[in-house]
Formats: sequence, structure tokens, C-alpha cells
Amino acid sequence: MVKALLFDVFGTVVDWRTGVAQEAKAFFADRGISVDTTAFADAWRAKYQPAMERVRAGSRGYVPLDVLHRENLDATLADFGLSASVDPAARTNLNRAWEKLPPWPDSLMGLTTLKSKYAIAPCSNGSIAMMTWLARYGGLPWDTVLGAEIARAYKPQPAVYLASASALGLVPSEVMMVAAHNNDLAAARAAGLKTAFVPRPTEHGPGQTSDLEPDTDWDVMASDLNDLARKLGE
Amino acid sequence: MVKALLFDVFGTVVDWRTGVAQEAKAFFADRGISVDTTAFADAWRAKYQPAMERVRAGSRGYVPLDVLHRENLDATLADFGLSASVDPAARTNLNRAWEKLPPWPDSLMGLTTLKSKYAIAPCSNGSIAMMTWLARYGGLPWDTVLGAEIARAYKPQPAVYLASASALGLVPSEVMMVAAHNNDLAAARAAGLKTAFVPRPTEHGPGQTSDLEPDTDWDVMASDLNDLARKLGE
Repeated sequence: MVKALLFDVFGTVVDWRTGVAQEAKAFFADRGISVDTTAFADAWRAKYQPAMERVRAGSRGYVPLDVLHRENLDATLADFGLSASVDPAARTNLNRAWEKLPPWPDSLMGLTTLKSKYAIAPCSNGSIAMMTWLARYGGLPWDTVLGAEIARAYKPQPAVYLASASALGLVPSEVMMVAAHNNDLAAARAAGLKTAFVPRPTEHGPGQTSDLEPDTDWDVMASDLNDLARKLGE
Repeated sequence: MVKALLFDVFGTVVDWRTGVAQEAKAFFADRGISVDTTAFADAWRAKYQPAMERVRAGSRGYVPLDVLHRENLDATLADFGLSASVDPAARTNLNRAWEKLPPWPDSLMGLTTLKSKYAIAPCSNGSIAMMTWLARYGGLPWDTVLGAEIARAYKPQPAVYLASASALGLVPSEVMMVAAHNNDLAAARAAGLKTAFVPRPTEHGPGQTSDLEPDTDWDVMASDLNDLARKLGE
């Protein structure tokens, strides 16, 4: 019997692409710099998996995602020819764009309904700080923050799912992972968790080709978090 | 400038003595066993500091408080001549008494008001699981759970306060520790945190002699959590 729901956050609960682009737009406009900020958001995010892969591969010890994001920001600014235009303090500020991301329209009501029956927590690759400030920004009603920093590892490594279940005093089968990404659910299932797929077909913009459909028979498939609440019996 | 408030929980936010005694009363009544359950709660709690001290002293690695509580429960049952009367599954169940503790009358309103201005989190010696289920039991509106398990150490070791501030991306002076215990605040202050004292003169029952007054000039002194919200400018 499932007692807790763990959520992927970037893409599943919040719209990181719109949020980062909006923050970047305001940031560069203040400085009189012209940038395609959606392309900037995509370029910054494109460095996310390779940066985590170095930690997963063991060639680098665990550092929180804030550190990787900041390094990736430096590289993205260089790619856009803006290295000389943005000082370190401003970069620290722009790096906090990841704490100011809009929830998808159904996220707050869906999570609030689900919380009445299940413990709910992010199981994200984001740090405790990112998840906490992001929740305060958007009103996400988490019971606590779990995920990468608890495990000092990055999804899809099994330690992240297992440490998050264990931190609640639960065995994996008492926990359900909710995500818009098939690979996240595959790893959660392999670790013994239940799985729920919620598609987010515009996470990567109008031309998205990945994760439009479930790859396999996840335990629950829902159209959004309100539908998930209905399917889990409210 | 303070951005987050960390709270001691057992005694400061919830009334552990009443809660444990109530849970024990129902537990033993169900089994037809006559026990002074307030004395039982006090005896169980009396083993708390010595158990943590073995971890603090390094003679034992960190284990979550749930594990220490369970060992202390076994010893307390033996002290009360009840070792043969309670099987292991029932002990596991009784150990969850620490997840079912009533908040003090001002705690929910005080925390809710404080949350509108500050990030709020427990910085307790309790585990993430204990703090999460306890929050769900009592409606405590934490932003996340910090404290001992994040640091793999027990208060008053400085690592607990420092790891909790760091997990929010804050320096110690941006964080205020709130507690009903002078020794907790002394350790927090030594680690660089701001401090707020809230007396809980009946935590240990009507005859309490400790922590009735602040020992020194803590940064804020409040009569309860609603008064703390007023003094921190709401």
C-alpha cells in the first residue's frame, strides 16, 4: 500500500523552460543586452545531464545542483559571447532563476489534494535549497524535501530513490514515483518503487518529441496531477 | 538579515510528554496492562540524551533517532517489568508514539504566520521520517525538514546547525534557531546563528525546574510562537 508520493520537479511539477527564459529576459533587459532567452534557457539546460553524468560516473564527487548550474551558466554565457558582460555577483543572482519557476496550472491543486492522503515530497536532482525556495516561490505544499542531496547522488542512480524512501521510514513498494520522464520511472521501478506517468508535452516547447507517451505499463497513467489525484482515490 | 527560522521540536513545538503518555495509555490499556504512563514517558525520555551521547562521543556511528528510541523502549519496558508482555511488532508500533505528539496551542498559528515571512524548518534531533510524519499528524507547515539526519550528527554538535543553514544556501547569520532550551541556543549561537528563546514551562510537567527563564541575552525572547511572530515583525 502506497503511503508516500515522490515527484520529479523540473518539467513534472514546474515549467522550468518558461521560468528560466522569463528570469533571463528580465535579467538581460536590465543590462541592455539582447538575447534570445528561450534559446538561452535551452542551452543552459542542455548542459545539465552531462554535468551530472560526471558525478554519476564517479569522476567528480557529489556537489549540489546549484554548483553545477552555476558552472553551466558560466559556460552558457561564454557560448553566447557574454562572458565579459556579466559579473560574478550578477551570475549568482541569475543562477537563482531555478528557484523561480512557475508550477504547471494543475500542480498546486493536484498536490494539495494528494497531500490529504499521501506524504508528498520532491525527489528531484535539485538541492534542498533549490527545492525549498522553489516551493516557497510557487506555493508547492511539500511535506519535506527528499531526492539527490539526501542521497548525495543523481537520478537515475538507484540510491536517490532508495534513500528517499528510507528517509520516510518506508520500503520502496510503499512509495510511488511521479514523473513526466520515462527514464526516471524506469529507474524508480527498478529500485522497487511504484510508478505514475504524467505527460508534460510542452516541457521542451512546442516541438517536443520526447516523453509524449508512456513507454510501458506504468502503475498509473494520468493526464495531470488533478487526474492523478482522482486515479489514486483522492 | 534573517531569512530562515530553525526550530527545536520536542518540547518547543510539540508536547512530547503528554503525547507519549497518551499513546502509551491507549497501547497498554488495549493489552490490559496497568502502567503509570506519564512515568513511562519520562523514563523513556530519560534515556534519550545518554543514547545520543554515545553517537556524539564517537563510540557509535550515526543512526536515526528512531533506532535509539526503539532501543530505549526495549530498556524502558525491561525497567517496568514488561519485557515479556510486548512483542516486537507491537514495540515497533509503540515507537511511533513520537510521530503522534500534540503541538502546543500556539504552534500552528505561530508557525503559519512566521512562514509568510521566513522559511521554516525543524532542526531537531529527530529523523526526517519522525519529523515528516509528526508534521502530518499535527499539521505543522514546515517548508522542509532539516536537523540531525541531514548532518548525521546530534545537537548540540555544531555540524547540525551548520549543515541545516548550508542546506538552505544560507550563512549561519541569516538563520535563527528557536528553542525552549538554553543549551540548544548556546550551541546555535556558538555556530553563528541568531537565537530566539520561547519558554515551555510545563514540558517536563508541573514540577519543571529547567529552562524556565532565558540564561542570557538571546537575540529574541518571546512568550510563545505567536509572540515570536509579533516580535519578528510578522
